[in-house]
Amino acid sequence: MSWNTFGRVLRFTTWGESHGPALGAVVDGCPPGLALSEEAIQPFLDARKPGQNRFTTQRQEPDQVRILSGTFEGKTTGTPISLMIENVDQRSKDYSDVARAYRPGHADYAYDAKYGFRDFRGGGRSSARETAARVAAGAVARLIVPEVTITAYVCQIGDDEIDRSAMNFAEIGNNPFFCPDSRAAKRWEEKIDAARKAGSSLGAVVECVAQGVPAGWGAPIYAKLDADLAAAMMGINAVKGVEIGDGFGAAALSGEANADPMRAGEDGDPEFTANHAGGIAGGISTGQPVVCRVAFKPTSSILTPVDTITRDGENTEIVTKGRHDPCVGIRGTPVVAAMMALVLADHKMLHRAQVAER
Amino acid sequence: MSWNTFGRVLRFTTWGESHGPALGAVVDGCPPGLALSEEAIQPFLDARKPGQNRFTTQRQEPDQVRILSGTFEGKTTGTPISLMIENVDQRSKDYSDVARAYRPGHADYAYDAKYGFRDFRGGGRSSARETAARVAAGAVARLIVPEVTITAYVCQIGDDEIDRSAMNFAEIGNNPFFCPDSRAAKRWEEKIDAARKAGSSLGAVVECVAQGVPAGWGAPIYAKLDADLAAAMMGINAVKGVEIGDGFGAAALSGEANADPMRAGEDGDPEFTANHAGGIAGGISTGQPVVCRVAFKPTSSILTPVDTITRDGENTEIVTKGRHDPCVGIRGTPVVAAMMALVLADHKMLHRAQVAER
Amino acid sequence: MSWNTFGRVLRFTTWGESHGPALGAVVDGCPPGLALSEEAIQPFLDARKPGQNRFTTQRQEPDQVRILSGTFEGKTTGTPISLMIENVDQRSKDYSDVARAYRPGHADYAYDAKYGFRDFRGGGRSSARETAARVAAGAVARLIVPEVTITAYVCQIGDDEIDRSAMNFAEIGNNPFFCPDSRAAKRWEEKIDAARKAGSSLGAVVECVAQGVPAGWGAPIYAKLDADLAAAMMGINAVKGVEIGDGFGAAALSGEANADPMRAGEDGDPEFTANHAGGIAGGISTGQPVVCRVAFKPTSSILTPVDTITRDGENTEIVTKGRHDPCVGIRGTPVVAAMMALVLADHKMLHRAQVAER
Amino acid sequence: MSWNTFGRVLRFTTWGESHGPALGAVVDGCPPGLALSEEAIQPFLDARKPGQNRFTTQRQEPDQVRILSGTFEGKTTGTPISLMIENVDQRSKDYSDVARAYRPGHADYAYDAKYGFRDFRGGGRSSARETAARVAAGAVARLIVPEVTITAYVCQIGDDEIDRSAMNFAEIGNNPFFCPDSRAAKRWEEKIDAARKAGSSLGAVVECVAQGVPAGWGAPIYAKLDADLAAAMMGINAVKGVEIGDGFGAAALSGEANADPMRAGEDGDPEFTANHAGGIAGGISTGQPVVCRVAFKPTSSILTPVDTITRDGENTEIVTKGRHDPCVGIRGTPVVAAMMALVLADHKMLHRAQVAER
Repeated sequence: MSWNTFGRVLRFTTWGESHGPALGAVVDGCPPGLALSEEAIQPFLDARKPGQNRFTTQRQEPDQVRILSGTFEGKTTGTPISLMIENVDQRSKDYSDVARAYRPGHADYAYDAKYGFRDFRGGGRSSARETAARVAAGAVARLIVPEVTITAYVCQIGDDEIDRSAMNFAEIGNNPFFCPDSRAAKRWEEKIDAARKAGSSLGAVVECVAQGVPAGWGAPIYAKLDADLAAAMMGINAVKGVEIGDGFGAAALSGEANADPMRAGEDGDPEFTANHAGGIAGGISTGQPVVCRVAFKPTSSILTPVDTITRDGENTEIVTKGRHDPCVGIRGTPVVAAMMALVLADHKMLHRAQVAER
Repeated sequence: MSWNTFGRVLRFTTWGESHGPALGAVVDGCPPGLALSEEAIQPFLDARKPGQNRFTTQRQEPDQVRILSGTFEGKTTGTPISLMIENVDQRSKDYSDVARAYRPGHADYAYDAKYGFRDFRGGGRSSARETAARVAAGAVARLIVPEVTITAYVCQIGDDEIDRSAMNFAEIGNNPFFCPDSRAAKRWEEKIDAARKAGSSLGAVVECVAQGVPAGWGAPIYAKLDADLAAAMMGINAVKGVEIGDGFGAAALSGEANADPMRAGEDGDPEFTANHAGGIAGGISTGQPVVCRVAFKPTSSILTPVDTITRDGENTEIVTKGRHDPCVGIRGTPVVAAMMALVLADHKMLHRAQVAER
Repeated sequence: MSWNTFGRVLRFTTWGESHGPALGAVVDGCPPGLALSEEAIQPFLDARKPGQNRFTTQRQEPDQVRILSGTFEGKTTGTPISLMIENVDQRSKDYSDVARAYRPGHADYAYDAKYGFRDFRGGGRSSARETAARVAAGAVARLIVPEVTITAYVCQIGDDEIDRSAMNFAEIGNNPFFCPDSRAAKRWEEKIDAARKAGSSLGAVVECVAQGVPAGWGAPIYAKLDADLAAAMMGINAVKGVEIGDGFGAAALSGEANADPMRAGEDGDPEFTANHAGGIAGGISTGQPVVCRVAFKPTSSILTPVDTITRDGENTEIVTKGRHDPCVGIRGTPVVAAMMALVLADHKMLHRAQVAER
Repeated sequence: MSWNTFGRVLRFTTWGESHGPALGAVVDGCPPGLALSEEAIQPFLDARKPGQNRFTTQRQEPDQVRILSGTFEGKTTGTPISLMIENVDQRSKDYSDVARAYRPGHADYAYDAKYGFRDFRGGGRSSARETAARVAAGAVARLIVPEVTITAYVCQIGDDEIDRSAMNFAEIGNNPFFCPDSRAAKRWEEKIDAARKAGSSLGAVVECVAQGVPAGWGAPIYAKLDADLAAAMMGINAVKGVEIGDGFGAAALSGEANADPMRAGEDGDPEFTANHAGGIAGGISTGQPVVCRVAFKPTSSILTPVDTITRDGENTEIVTKGRHDPCVGIRGTPVVAAMMALVLADHKMLHRAQVAER
């Protein structure tokens, strides 16, 4: 099976391969009357776009989005929004290596085992290029949750974490790593350069904070806000772990240390004096910032030869040449933000379906 | 909204509150002809059952399951399987505290913010008692994946991890903690006793390994096997983090260190010389063991007073008396295993829908 | 596969066999705060209940509903509502005939072909007893659409139609046939008595009108209000045809004759001077009464021997003894009304998810 | 809400407006390894294409399909298949009439009531042009059910029915009406010419027969094969009624007359001596031909002025100029066939998910 639709009320479907003519998303269920233009989507795609600096893949893709349906006179109509991004730089190259042998860590073997057949050019459907379509869909989702501010940033590359006392969201746009700590950004520059030159790669941790989410979003028991976020994030290419709030750190705390005490706020809304829970309790938002952390493995494409087998079951080794991100977590950052927007927009609409009855 | 159904082809729906007359699950989509009896389900419920030793809540629930539909002459018929567990020990007590003020860390405030109304007796629908229904459903799912062996165990309580070199699956049943390391189990006994006596609580990490999963299960892009596992696990009460394979540890590795090299196996199937990926690549199983790790926060119910507010927005503090697990992660272990079985069974069926065409 | 859940936002799942211990429904997604009791559901079940007069099956079932979850202090909580009806009169009889040979017109052969196995007692899951669960779920749905008045009635039995000029909704409760024309009811009495005595059976047409549905419900393109109604109605046991508005009659009209002209109403809302469309255009309600017509085939259970084959493929003939409705369309009437309520409630909630944004 | 996805395992999503740049479908869940090319899809689109003779709209659309994803080296890969059809002949015209006043019988008022806003050019999303995307998706579905032969034809225009004794499937392609009775086709020619010249329109009934469907497809209770067909057909533009087998005619039969007796066949499979049921019992296919009949209302676009109101609620009248089909049922025929293929393919895959277990 393939299953290329995400969401319950706000649903989007993506399509497209790395080296096909185009890729895209159809966003269905978007409310009518929202101002939407290609210009509103493009900046999010630009943030994810490859080839912008030496720390990412050198594939040159303008990633220009076209809106093919669902708007009229600059506004959404409530009908499906078809977004298309043409592939421009599918460099013609020799794929005989990849066609013949499996790249360890990639989806090559798994796709073959599943489908008996695959488009091996650039990873086909398993390429992270597919995430461009998510970012475009995420830009639509943001229109549905204007009350929410979503900030995503890299908080660790390799084993090098940011200094949280030096964290400044204003710094995120000042470096090519979405890093909120200017000193860490400096260190990472060297680190990634070294990895790139060595033909090696690095993992990363991305953090995402959504401020302004009101209390009450999330659909227990099997569409909990945190469960849907976990699925959304774990489904991003190269992701191996997801945490909400303190995450694995919470396992080491006592109940007292992990409590998020509440106090009456001035406006009648409660205030919390801690946020170990990351803004979600019982699968429902509490009104605190929603905090999510996502672990990206190092890019599997490395220049060091790795043992593998051919499709015919013969032992061999493979070197993954080509244009690759030395640290996929970096360009994964706008994707994390997009998935956060998509999950929150879906849950806002889902919530509204029910509670207006009160 | 509430959303109490999980799964795509094998679907189950749970219902019931902590202090209602009963709780249950309806399992839909199960293939016909599988031998199913109440006796086959009961042992899984018994493993999760409360009141079995001093390390868990003293609520006495026999958790006897009844099959109300979907079988005939001891076999599944392909029609929905209705499973019911009666609540027996809903001790009548004074709930005025909980009705009046929110217990921090519980879903009390979030449910109220969402629904404007809640069954506050024992946490109502947000109680971990609901997971009994998942365990019953999971026992049905296991029948669908007889080729898979699922083992779940606690690998960390508080900050105290097992010694992986001393890990022995045969030990798991020999202690009340589902611990595969007998020396760690000893240490935990003291640790939990101390927490229990202090009215405090502890977090835990549960690991789950599924052996025998063939390559090819998982539905890219938005029903990836790892994404569905992440949702399944993050949706368990008190869970705050999920990892597949090396998880967050992978973020600190280089591409070379994280590679899972492949070698030709004797039977033609590939062998892997490492499993950093936890048995999943590109959202599809690789044939290696599927490895998942789940972080449970410490129980929010503690005897130390915590600052909170009343429903009327007044400051107060609350002590959560009653019968509680000092470490919910322990009884969460059979739930993790059940969710693994449910996700795998669903994906086996989903996979079969498509590939039989080949 | 079996697929026992219906609906998109308001979803219900039914379970249970004709001769199992019980049957039931889990209604999920119901808004919180609605007054719900067993007493509110029971009258709808009573209307469908067997054994009330000589024109329906003599199986004696009290069809008492129990609410097992989802309410607190007499109100819905927003969590799943589990409804259970115990089977009381599963008369023990000799099923060897039905076990051995297929009853033509019943689902016997189809279930065997699908599942290779079936509960043959009373038709098992394919029995119309399952519709009791829908009627119970429908009673919950009605709470969500209090602005709508749903009226269902039999408008034809065999080839004998009501006189529409003599139609009076107040008559519907005055005869055992849900007939709005007292003279037709008289004729039908004789007709059905004759069929019953001859061991024969009759078909029927049921009409359902929903007044008070506002303009705007329905989700184009693939969850159109009329398409969802068609699925809901065609899925009722013994139904073979569904019409909206003029239905097949519209095929014989000219565009001029089929037009539903609009006029400005006094309150600003438009008025229509005809309703050929049955209250739905483009899959969306227009504010006119929603009108649906449903054809029930004659009961397949007849005393005349019919040619059939055994499970082993031998020719034989079968007589369907037992307690059966001579005209299943009659007791199908409350089921039609229940499905109308369930579809409308789902679409009200679905609509609300999106348009509150405006 | 809008809901533009259909299907459970084989799912397709359509997008696009009548006068936007393009329209399309994303087909998800298709098995890998099936030969698929644009040439294989095009004939089905050509059969539905407008402007081919004087009996259909004169809009000139080549309806050339492009496959943008999901195939590699001429075969499906198991990943989503994106199909795009560019709009070429969106004649620029004056839409001020339609923008200002509602066309009775069209979706104009309903869309406005729902969305508060609509793309009024050519009916926007509610235009029957959307069905081109279904036909393209249906061509993919046919690859999944090669064992099935689907034949759709018009059996009635206005009140003029074909002579069933003169029915010959070979005639269907010999006239512009998909008519299997050559004499009826002659009569219809005059009939439609007259309607066209008078600026009037005609309704029609389309029949669809699927031969070769094995026994066992269909998912009781709420995804019955007939219920899914009913939804699929009722969701086609202008459809007001759906029948399976004898449909409404069955309501007038006695149980004896409606029985489909079974006899042992030579190959061990049962044979039926009648097919009143239209190949479906209990929601599951019986192995007999699946027979479905669909009523299309007359086109609402007529040259006779009809009373209506403006968006501002003023009384007015409207004449629907422009290029329209005098009988939409004709070009609806390939759409009916496409939906049959899509439902059958979905159910084949759904069935396979479960029963391979046996």
